[in-house]
Amino acid sequence: MISGRCAACKYLRRGCASDCIFSLYFPSNDPQRFTYVHKIYGASNVAKLLQQVPAYLRDSAADSMYHEAQCRIEDPVYGCVGVISQLYQQIYNAENELAKTRAEIAIYASLAHQQFQI
Amino acid sequence: MISGRCAACKYLRRGCASDCIFSLYFPSNDPQRFTYVHKIYGASNVAKLLQQVPAYLRDSAADSMYHEAQCRIEDPVYGCVGVISQLYQQIYNAENELAKTRAEIAIYASLAHQQFQI
Repeated sequence: MISGRCAACKYLRRGCASDCIFSLYFPSNDPQRFTYVHKIYGASNVAKLLQQVPAYLRDSAADSMYHEAQCRIEDPVYGCVGVISQLYQQIYNAENELAKTRAEIAIYASLAHQQFQI
Repeated sequence: MISGRCAACKYLRRGCASDCIFSLYFPSNDPQRFTYVHKIYGASNVAKLLQQVPAYLRDSAADSMYHEAQCRIEDPVYGCVGVISQLYQQIYNAENELAKTRAEIAIYASLAHQQFQI
């Protein structure tokens, strides 16, 4: 039945078998999800990866592939690795800020101690 | 010349043309780099992506694809997205720590101020 095909089988213009590896993770109401992973990985690599992980983790695997594909389409040069670099920079900044703030504490603590002794 | 083939052409068992899209970014002395991207994206998707970006950015694109492929091989379910989640958690923790430390500063500052007035 044509209307029952998943997004992948619709895109690939083929029938959707009852044991189709894509059907649970690429529903027909979200065609972009499959278009993205197909563009970046290709249908056969997506199928291979899904088959490689236990069934209960396939939804997470499809989700993460979709997010990575989306990142790569938005940023063909750096993809998700660009996001990771930005986050490392953000962590570096937050840790720097924390070190500065702790140094401030040490000054206030020492001042409070001196005042207390006077 | 067989010894002049890049890692991709060696893997794909074909001659390496002078304008081979892979040769500059997948040298024969690092065969794993191509094996990884081939396993995750497939050779034709890697070639397409390299062709899509300006020549001076292809090295960065090949690097980021290699890192993403490596992540996906190490963690088939979450790949790079798993790393991103961990980094968000780390940022959340650092920012929490910063907020707590700033609250401590406010206490010390107020104590120092009170002592000074006494």
